[in-house]
Amino acid sequence: MIKVAIIGATGYTARESIEILLRHSLAEITYLTALPDECAPVTDIFPSLRGRIDLPMEPLDMDILTNKADVALCCLPHRVSMGFVPRLLAAGLKVIDFSADYRLHDPDLYQRVYMTHHTDRDTISEAAFGLPELFRSAIKSARLVANPGCYPTAAALALAPLLKEQLIACDDIVVNAISGVTGAGRKAALAFHFPEMNENIFGYAVGEHRHMPEIEQILTDFTGRKTKVLFQPHVAGFDRGIYESVYCHPLEKISDDMLLQLYHDFYAGEPFVRVLAKPPAVKDVAFTNFCDIFPTQARGKMMVFSAIDNLIKGAAGQAVQNMNLICGFEETMGLL
Amino acid sequence: MIKVAIIGATGYTARESIEILLRHSLAEITYLTALPDECAPVTDIFPSLRGRIDLPMEPLDMDILTNKADVALCCLPHRVSMGFVPRLLAAGLKVIDFSADYRLHDPDLYQRVYMTHHTDRDTISEAAFGLPELFRSAIKSARLVANPGCYPTAAALALAPLLKEQLIACDDIVVNAISGVTGAGRKAALAFHFPEMNENIFGYAVGEHRHMPEIEQILTDFTGRKTKVLFQPHVAGFDRGIYESVYCHPLEKISDDMLLQLYHDFYAGEPFVRVLAKPPAVKDVAFTNFCDIFPTQARGKMMVFSAIDNLIKGAAGQAVQNMNLICGFEETMGLL
Amino acid sequence: MIKVAIIGATGYTARESIEILLRHSLAEITYLTALPDECAPVTDIFPSLRGRIDLPMEPLDMDILTNKADVALCCLPHRVSMGFVPRLLAAGLKVIDFSADYRLHDPDLYQRVYMTHHTDRDTISEAAFGLPELFRSAIKSARLVANPGCYPTAAALALAPLLKEQLIACDDIVVNAISGVTGAGRKAALAFHFPEMNENIFGYAVGEHRHMPEIEQILTDFTGRKTKVLFQPHVAGFDRGIYESVYCHPLEKISDDMLLQLYHDFYAGEPFVRVLAKPPAVKDVAFTNFCDIFPTQARGKMMVFSAIDNLIKGAAGQAVQNMNLICGFEETMGLL
Amino acid sequence: MIKVAIIGATGYTARESIEILLRHSLAEITYLTALPDECAPVTDIFPSLRGRIDLPMEPLDMDILTNKADVALCCLPHRVSMGFVPRLLAAGLKVIDFSADYRLHDPDLYQRVYMTHHTDRDTISEAAFGLPELFRSAIKSARLVANPGCYPTAAALALAPLLKEQLIACDDIVVNAISGVTGAGRKAALAFHFPEMNENIFGYAVGEHRHMPEIEQILTDFTGRKTKVLFQPHVAGFDRGIYESVYCHPLEKISDDMLLQLYHDFYAGEPFVRVLAKPPAVKDVAFTNFCDIFPTQARGKMMVFSAIDNLIKGAAGQAVQNMNLICGFEETMGLL
Repeated sequence: MIKVAIIGATGYTARESIEILLRHSLAEITYLTALPDECAPVTDIFPSLRGRIDLPMEPLDMDILTNKADVALCCLPHRVSMGFVPRLLAAGLKVIDFSADYRLHDPDLYQRVYMTHHTDRDTISEAAFGLPELFRSAIKSARLVANPGCYPTAAALALAPLLKEQLIACDDIVVNAISGVTGAGRKAALAFHFPEMNENIFGYAVGEHRHMPEIEQILTDFTGRKTKVLFQPHVAGFDRGIYESVYCHPLEKISDDMLLQLYHDFYAGEPFVRVLAKPPAVKDVAFTNFCDIFPTQARGKMMVFSAIDNLIKGAAGQAVQNMNLICGFEETMGLL
Repeated sequence: MIKVAIIGATGYTARESIEILLRHSLAEITYLTALPDECAPVTDIFPSLRGRIDLPMEPLDMDILTNKADVALCCLPHRVSMGFVPRLLAAGLKVIDFSADYRLHDPDLYQRVYMTHHTDRDTISEAAFGLPELFRSAIKSARLVANPGCYPTAAALALAPLLKEQLIACDDIVVNAISGVTGAGRKAALAFHFPEMNENIFGYAVGEHRHMPEIEQILTDFTGRKTKVLFQPHVAGFDRGIYESVYCHPLEKISDDMLLQLYHDFYAGEPFVRVLAKPPAVKDVAFTNFCDIFPTQARGKMMVFSAIDNLIKGAAGQAVQNMNLICGFEETMGLL
Repeated sequence: MIKVAIIGATGYTARESIEILLRHSLAEITYLTALPDECAPVTDIFPSLRGRIDLPMEPLDMDILTNKADVALCCLPHRVSMGFVPRLLAAGLKVIDFSADYRLHDPDLYQRVYMTHHTDRDTISEAAFGLPELFRSAIKSARLVANPGCYPTAAALALAPLLKEQLIACDDIVVNAISGVTGAGRKAALAFHFPEMNENIFGYAVGEHRHMPEIEQILTDFTGRKTKVLFQPHVAGFDRGIYESVYCHPLEKISDDMLLQLYHDFYAGEPFVRVLAKPPAVKDVAFTNFCDIFPTQARGKMMVFSAIDNLIKGAAGQAVQNMNLICGFEETMGLL
Repeated sequence: MIKVAIIGATGYTARESIEILLRHSLAEITYLTALPDECAPVTDIFPSLRGRIDLPMEPLDMDILTNKADVALCCLPHRVSMGFVPRLLAAGLKVIDFSADYRLHDPDLYQRVYMTHHTDRDTISEAAFGLPELFRSAIKSARLVANPGCYPTAAALALAPLLKEQLIACDDIVVNAISGVTGAGRKAALAFHFPEMNENIFGYAVGEHRHMPEIEQILTDFTGRKTKVLFQPHVAGFDRGIYESVYCHPLEKISDDMLLQLYHDFYAGEPFVRVLAKPPAVKDVAFTNFCDIFPTQARGKMMVFSAIDNLIKGAAGQAVQNMNLICGFEETMGLL
C-alpha cells in the first residue's frame, strides 16, 4: 500500500485523482494540500466526495508530507509547480507533475511559451514524459513524471503510428480539437458562465496554444524527425472530453484496411487505446481512461479521429497510470 | 415613434430588451447607459447584436437623456435603481423599472427583504405594478411601472383565477419553481460556472427568497384577501425559462373541465396567456412573451403548472408590454 | 466469487449494472441475455464498455443460465419480468428484479396500475422490497428482491424519518420530482429527441404516475399508518439524477436543529445516505449510490429535499447493494 | 402583401420559416401542407406557435394552393421535392426549395450522391442557387431557387474571398464542421435520443457527406476554377448552429491585416455577413440570419472560421432572404 499526497488539490484534476485513488487497491490518499485560504475539509470543497473520504486540505508542510507520503500527485498550476517539485523530490517522494513545467525539454522554449523563466532547469532532463503508450520504459524508472497535457495526449496517440511508419508528411498536419469546459479549470469567468457557454462553441488561441509545441516535441521525440503541427482548439458546451480530428498529407498509398491494421498492431496489448472502425464518440470515453482512435482516408488526406476524457486519460487517469508504472503496480490498477 | 433609453444596459434583461425593441415598429432605441468602466460599443458587450444596432454605451448624463428619450427602461440592480428613478421621472420620462425597488408597497417590508433603507418612499405609491393581466388599467395611466419579478409573474398568473373565485385556501399554497441560469444574471460565479451548473439542479433560498413577499402582495392586492405562499425556487442547467408547479388546498369541488373553463374565461382575450389542457413545457415558451398555464387536480389538491421565459415575460417582454400600455400602443407590438 | 447474469441487458440500468459489477471484487458477470433480435457483443451495444468486458448478449437459455450464474439481475420491463422470474427462482438463482412486477404487495393494485393481470401472484409475497435503509433485514434473507423504483427511493428516504416520528400528517404530502432523461429509458421517442428535450422541462403523468402507489405502500409498510402522497414528476434536459422537493403538514413544533439531528440519528451508520445542512445538488450524487437529504421548515410547512442518481441508487447501484446483502457481502462493495 | 404556402410543414425548418414569416411585414402565411396522416392544427404540431398562428396543416391540394399562394417554401425531403416542384411552378408559383433536388447542376452527380434518378432534369437548369452573397443577380430573376444546404452556406461564405483572389490552392482545402442536432431533423432516432446525444460529439459521414459535392460546385461556379474540398462534419449536443474551421494551403504571402481587409471589402454592404477579428461563437449567431467569419493564418496555413444558425442562415432565414429577392422586397425584411 503506497501513501499518496495530492498537492494543490482544489481543482477538477485533483478531484478526479481522488475519485480514482479511492478505487485503487494498492494506494491510499494520506495528505491533501491547498493554499492556506482555500483549506477546508475536502468534502466542503467537493461535496460529491462526502462519505467516501474524510481528510482536511492543509497548507503544504514538507515535514508532514515526508512522513505521510511516498508519492505526490502535484496538481499545481504551471509556473508554480517548479517551485515545489524540487522540494518534493528532495524529500524522497516520487512525483507525478500535472503542470507543464517539466514537459518541454528545452527551457528556452518553455520560457517563450509560458512567458516565465524556468527556475528548475536541472530537473527537467530527468523528468520522463508521461505518455505510457509511447514512453513506457522511461517512465518506469523515473522518479519524476511530467504528466502530458490533455490535447497532446489525444493528438500524439492519433499521430504516432502514421509518423512512425512515415506514411504522412511531418510538416503538414492539422489537428482540429474540441474540448469540454472542465478543460478550462474550476475558476469562474464570464466566458464560461453557464448562460454564455451553454449551447455554444468557439475556437480560441489561434496559432498560439501552449499545447502546440508540446505535441510537436512528443512526436519529434518519438519519431526522431522534426514534426510540425497546426493545432487548433475549440471549446464547446459540455463537461468532459476532447475530440480531435486530424488531417494529414499522405506520403504513400495504403488501403483503409491496412491502415486500420497498422493501428491495431501498433496498439496491440495497450489496455487504454481502443482502435475503432468508425469515428469515436466523446461520450464513449467520458469517465474512462480510454483513448478511442479511428484512422481513415478521404479526398486525398489521411485522417485520424481520437477521443479521450480530458480529466482522466488527459490528466488524472494518466497520472495514476504513470504512478502505477513507477510503483511497479499493474498498469490498469484503479483505472478499469 | 417614441425614443427609448435603456439605463444599465449590460445584463441579460437589457440585451433582451434591445432585441425586442429592434423589432418594434413604433419605438427606437436612442440611448444606452452603463457604469463608466463598462462603457463600450453595445456590440462589444453583446456581439450577437452586431449588424443590428450601432450605439455606444455611455455613462448616464441626465441632460443627454432628457434630449434623447421619452421612455426609460431602467435595468439597474435593486437598491441602485431608487437612486436614479426619481431623476428620470423629474426629467419627464416615463419609466419601466426592472428592479424590485418600487414593487413592494410597504417600504418597511422592502427594508426587511432587501436589507436596505428605501430612499425614495414617496414615489412608491405612484408606481403601478406591471403585471398587465391583473393590473392593466392602473398601468395605462402610470408614469412609473414596477416591472414584476420573473417568479412572481408565473406564480401570480397561475394562482389569480383560483384565488379570485375563492376555490382554494389562501394560506396553504406551495409554489415549486425551477429557473434557468440566466435568472442568476450575467456575473461569473463558481456556482454558475459551466462545469458546476451543467447537468445540475438544486434548491436554494429556502423560506427566504425575495420573490415570496412579492407574490403574496400581488395576490393579496388582486383578491383583497391576505394570501400566504410557500415559494421554493430551484435552478437547473438550462438557459431560459421558469417552470412553476403550484399545489393548493381546494375549498370547493369542481370538475376538471369546469376548472379549465374557468381559466379560459379568466384569460379570455389576453394575448399572452395560453391556457392548456396538459402541463406546459418550458421550451414552448422560451423566446416568447407567453405564459402557458394548466390547472388541474389530483389526490385532493388543486394544482397549476405555469411556464414563462424568465427574460421575456419575466422581464424584458413584460417591460415592453408595459411600455406599449403607457404609450397607448397596441399591447402586443414587438412581442409576437 | 459469485457469478452474475444480467437478464434483458440492453438498457441503461443494465449498462450501469455492468459498470458497477466490473469494479466488484467478489462478483463476476458471466451471462448477458437479450431478445434474439437484439443479440450482439455487449460492446456493440455499449461501445463505452470496449476493453472492459468481452461477452456476447445471448437469447436466454435456462440450462446455460443455471450453469453460469448464482444471481440474476433481471432488467426486463414491467409485465415481462413476471414471466421469467419464477423460472429463475426455480433454477435456484437469487434474483434482483428491476421491474415493478414484485413491488406492490396487492396484485389487484398492480393490475389497476400496470393494467395487466399479475401472472405470478404466489411469488409476490416472498419478494423483499429492496430499500435497504428501511427493510434491510427482510432483504438479507430473501431469494427475490423487488428493486424499488427510482422516484420511490428518493421519496421514501426523504419521508421515512418524519413519518416514523409522526411529525407530519400522513395524508397531506406533496412530492415534486424532477428526473433526468435516462429515466425514460433507452428508446427513441420524439419527446426525448435531443432538440425537443434539450433546454426543456415539463411535468407529466399528473395524478397517475405508477410510482405514486409504490411510494404510498413503502411508507405505509414502514410506519404502519396509511400514508397518502401526491407525487408529481417532471422531466428536464439532463442525463442522470432525480431531485425531489417534499412539502408536508407538520403535526408538531420542532426546531430546525432538532429536525436535522433527527435525520442524522435516523440515518446514522447508513453508508449511502448523506444528511446535509442545505439543499442537495443533483450533480453531487450523479454517478454515485448516495442519497443526499436535507430536511427543513418554512412558512408553516415541513420540507425535505432529496437527490439520487436514478440509474445508481435509483436502480443498478441499489440492486448491487441488495445483491451484496443477499450474498452476505459487505454492503458497500463495488459501490464506493 | 404576398401569400406564402409552406409545403411539408412539419419539420424544424418549416417551423423556423413560420416564425420568421410571422414577423414579415409584406408576407402572409396562407397555406400549410403535410402528409395526410400528419395533418393537424399547426399549433398541435408546434405548440410554441399557439396564439401566433391559427391554420390547419392540410394535405396538399393544387387547386387550393393556386388560389391561396403566390410563393411556396417547399420543405419536402430530398427525392420527394422534385415530384412536387414542377407542379408548383406549373401552377404559377415562385418556389424556394429547401431540398437538395435542384442544387446540383449535374443530374448524374445528383444520382450518385442521392442514389436516385432525377425525375425533373429539365427544371434543374433554371433553378438559381440561393446563396445571395455569391449569386444575388441570378436569384432575383428566378422563379425557382434551390436553397443551399446548411454546411455549404457556411463553407462557401468562408472560402469565396480566398478562392476568388487565388490566395489558396483550390485542391487542398479541409472544412471541419460541427453541427447542432436540429441539423439531423425532427425524427426520433437512437443516436439523437437525448441521453445518447447529450454531452456527446462525434464525427460522421467520413468522405461521403452529400454537402461535399455541393460545396465544391458552389466554389467552382463562383470562381470558375475546379475546387476540391475535404468536408468533415461532426454533430455535438446542442440545438442550433454550425461551426466551421477551414484549413487551406496559401499560394501567396499576405499580412493578417490585409487578409482581414480583403474579407471586409468582399462582404462590404452585405447585411448578413459579419467579418470579425477573432473566432466567432455559435451562440452569437444562433437565432439570427448572420454568418460570422474570421479569416486568419497560422503555422503556414490559411484558416477561416465561420458560424451560422443552421435553421436560419442555413435554411429558413436564407429562404426568406431569397424570397425577398425574388419578390423585390428589401432583402433583410423579417430577418433583423
